[in-house]
Amino acid sequence: MIKVDLLLRATAMATPTYTLFIGTFIHLPRKPTGADAKWRPELEIHHGALWVSNADGKIAGYDWSFSPVDGDVKALTEKLGLSGNVTEVVRAREERNEFFFPGFIDTHIHAPQYPNSGIFGSSTLLDWLETYTFPLESSFSDTSKARAVYSRVIARTLANGTTTAAYFATIHVPATNLLASLCHSRGQRALIGRVCMDNPAFCPSYYLDPSPESSVTKSKETIAHIHSLDPEGTLIQPILTPRFAPTCSPSALSGLASLAKSYNPPLHIQTHLSENKNEISLVRELFPESKDYTSVYDDFGLLTPRTILAHAVHLSPSERSLIADRGAKVSHCPASNSALGSGICAVRKLLDAGVQVGLGTDSGGDGEGEGVGDGEEVLSVEEGLYLATRGGAGVVDLAGEIGGFEVGMCFDAQMVRLGPGHLSSSSSSSSSSDAPVAAEHGIVDVFGWESWTEKVHKWVWTGDDRNVRAVWVRGRLVHSLDETPSNGRAGSQGGGCVGWGL
Amino acid sequence: MIKVDLLLRATAMATPTYTLFIGTFIHLPRKPTGADAKWRPELEIHHGALWVSNADGKIAGYDWSFSPVDGDVKALTEKLGLSGNVTEVVRAREERNEFFFPGFIDTHIHAPQYPNSGIFGSSTLLDWLETYTFPLESSFSDTSKARAVYSRVIARTLANGTTTAAYFATIHVPATNLLASLCHSRGQRALIGRVCMDNPAFCPSYYLDPSPESSVTKSKETIAHIHSLDPEGTLIQPILTPRFAPTCSPSALSGLASLAKSYNPPLHIQTHLSENKNEISLVRELFPESKDYTSVYDDFGLLTPRTILAHAVHLSPSERSLIADRGAKVSHCPASNSALGSGICAVRKLLDAGVQVGLGTDSGGDGEGEGVGDGEEVLSVEEGLYLATRGGAGVVDLAGEIGGFEVGMCFDAQMVRLGPGHLSSSSSSSSSSDAPVAAEHGIVDVFGWESWTEKVHKWVWTGDDRNVRAVWVRGRLVHSLDETPSNGRAGSQGGGCVGWGL
Repeated sequence: MIKVDLLLRATAMATPTYTLFIGTFIHLPRKPTGADAKWRPELEIHHGALWVSNADGKIAGYDWSFSPVDGDVKALTEKLGLSGNVTEVVRAREERNEFFFPGFIDTHIHAPQYPNSGIFGSSTLLDWLETYTFPLESSFSDTSKARAVYSRVIARTLANGTTTAAYFATIHVPATNLLASLCHSRGQRALIGRVCMDNPAFCPSYYLDPSPESSVTKSKETIAHIHSLDPEGTLIQPILTPRFAPTCSPSALSGLASLAKSYNPPLHIQTHLSENKNEISLVRELFPESKDYTSVYDDFGLLTPRTILAHAVHLSPSERSLIADRGAKVSHCPASNSALGSGICAVRKLLDAGVQVGLGTDSGGDGEGEGVGDGEEVLSVEEGLYLATRGGAGVVDLAGEIGGFEVGMCFDAQMVRLGPGHLSSSSSSSSSSDAPVAAEHGIVDVFGWESWTEKVHKWVWTGDDRNVRAVWVRGRLVHSLDETPSNGRAGSQGGGCVGWGL
Repeated sequence: MIKVDLLLRATAMATPTYTLFIGTFIHLPRKPTGADAKWRPELEIHHGALWVSNADGKIAGYDWSFSPVDGDVKALTEKLGLSGNVTEVVRAREERNEFFFPGFIDTHIHAPQYPNSGIFGSSTLLDWLETYTFPLESSFSDTSKARAVYSRVIARTLANGTTTAAYFATIHVPATNLLASLCHSRGQRALIGRVCMDNPAFCPSYYLDPSPESSVTKSKETIAHIHSLDPEGTLIQPILTPRFAPTCSPSALSGLASLAKSYNPPLHIQTHLSENKNEISLVRELFPESKDYTSVYDDFGLLTPRTILAHAVHLSPSERSLIADRGAKVSHCPASNSALGSGICAVRKLLDAGVQVGLGTDSGGDGEGEGVGDGEEVLSVEEGLYLATRGGAGVVDLAGEIGGFEVGMCFDAQMVRLGPGHLSSSSSSSSSSDAPVAAEHGIVDVFGWESWTEKVHKWVWTGDDRNVRAVWVRGRLVHSLDETPSNGRAGSQGGGCVGWGL
């Protein structure tokens, strides 16, 4: 199958140039329109060539009839009329079990909490906020600390193949704006939220917005910074972030809803919903006029098609219907829910109700985030990967731009390397199997007899950042393990897997 | 506190020599005799020096009043009367956040299934055996394949800090004996089980023992090999391995029970119990005379104080009591149970019933195996680590020899390195935080303000094999990331963390 977007080529610059990617491409299909609740995604596996416009980082075409092993690249570019316009060829090599996969979309991550990754104490959610979260977040008034932590978070998430992240920052405008600037310069696609929390009855006196008006005006300052940084929002977008109902006064909640509607298109919104049973009781006490927790957000006008609800563990059927009716999205955070003992989210019921669901790491850094636990029927590896790519794209309202390898989509992708098969050499008493294992190559062991589907399953269950050899966002190389980058940024010149020229 | 085992020193060789370990030592305490069900382990953290006899690999003494940072090593060895007898000093350095921790004990691991790590398909247990397990295991009639896979399993588990493993092998005597020999030469402590399965109604025709007698005689062949390899059983012990009730005929089960009793002390036994609900129904059909699944093993004389029952997910209170009464042990395999959707083991109920519980990885290679999920109250990090060390030591009947740093115990240990703290340098805009992250150093990020307890929590939640810098079994260095080992074996000479001389 050959597909070329002629329109894209026609509208590109006078002398359009391309990067050519050759090898195995694996992604999940889009859910077909009209597919019923029984639909389950399967891996789509293609071998061939795909080219990306250097001008806008979008996929300009692909040719699945081209052989990545012995195809003639020169003949291919001549056939496509790209001769002289291909600036770089990047190969995923079969013999190293390399393949291209869409970047992961982390739909819920608290950037300032990254230093507390793995520190849960014996707490549940509400204690944890008081003991660990609020003291740490309040220290981000120190912008140099924010720089150190945020730089690390971006580097770690990129290294895990996360090309897009919906970040909660802190209440501080300077530190939040810095997070936006760092994502922009490192090239990570991001939604950046300054946290709104102004309810003195719940928030600690040392860490809150002084008034409902302040929640709104400070949010506007960050929005203005992001709009000046990236006027088209091609990489960075603002997202309104009322922390969760108990931390926000009614007038802050309605003020933020109005603020969202004052933009065209309306602003993105993110918050937490029903993570924990104590939290639900608290919301019931604080908002006695609302029917349930989900209705609190709806009553204040915050349940929109651009709203991301994190966790949503304990929902009634009518809450699920309400979310579906409003077109709001859910970020499922399995690793966090399990670590904090919050409960198990009924993902399948959300999907069956027609809600779009993506995955979130919550605190970040803990691997690729495809926790695939479930209360009902266990989610398959393919469903987990679907949620981490296509599902996440829907949740951040970018389903037409990221999450797969269709022509016209942005090339937000990772190259995965599992390493050579141990038994694929002719010598059966392979010395590589006898040797002690070094840490730098990862722990996925391919023996040589696995199918591509089985290789992907091994990657999901036993892979880590060592298998993510290179990462691109909008066609720009933003992370690479096969170079020694200088200046805090992955260079575009490459040895190893990422090589120049024909 | 200073403690020296004078007896050990007096009975050592004419010129006893020692290896001196200096730094932070963290382990879990033994459960005090008479402690009630409310007892919870906390980390014991010591800073000082500990010395190990080179003759037998046992801890000969420690001095927790010695300062690892500025203590005078020469003065210490003079005070202890060890001058001239210390052949090596190994330091865990505070500035790299290094510490010594007991090696992990994996109480249930199928060595031949390692190539299928991460390949679960959409199967549950019984399908999985037919589709993935039996075809793979039967291929271990090829000893060269067994060598390749088993070498890899041992290297990977050592690299994860697993100093002791209770292995299921296959039905093949040559491949099983090879596994024993490889563990012996690589220095991993192991219980090695040739798998017994002779029931043609359940086992596939291409993979079973031809008769109940064959189950017994082939088991004896492996026992004889192990007894010739390691007559004292200091490192390698045999373990009788009826796969699980459905695969074994009644006469094989009783024959194996008699075989166990014919040795003094009786042989270790391992099998599976109540992993999955379909399996339980099957056992009920096949053994209608037994009261329940646990009673099947008891009725055949296989429920002994030297028996390890893997999984034990779905037990009635009377089954838990029966296990406790017989003194049999349980291997809890949280990662596997979750991946195969088998259910959640009620670990707390087992502990409360007085059953000794350890952790198992089942398929191996998937990290350090401290999955700490639970049906009831969530297990703490400390409880998970207790199960992985002290609990596991009890399960393999070596509670007096491994699992902690008491004098007289074997030095089965790992040195963990978390890496330097990012913000501990005086420069607040640390360049190390800005730089892209390289894969070789692991993903645990220490920022410099964490307590030792918090560092251990970060290690458990975000650490991996990259943080296990060196591993010792009986005082012998069996894995090291800071050397380039030759000859398929970690050398005893070292640069990096493991340095010679005073």
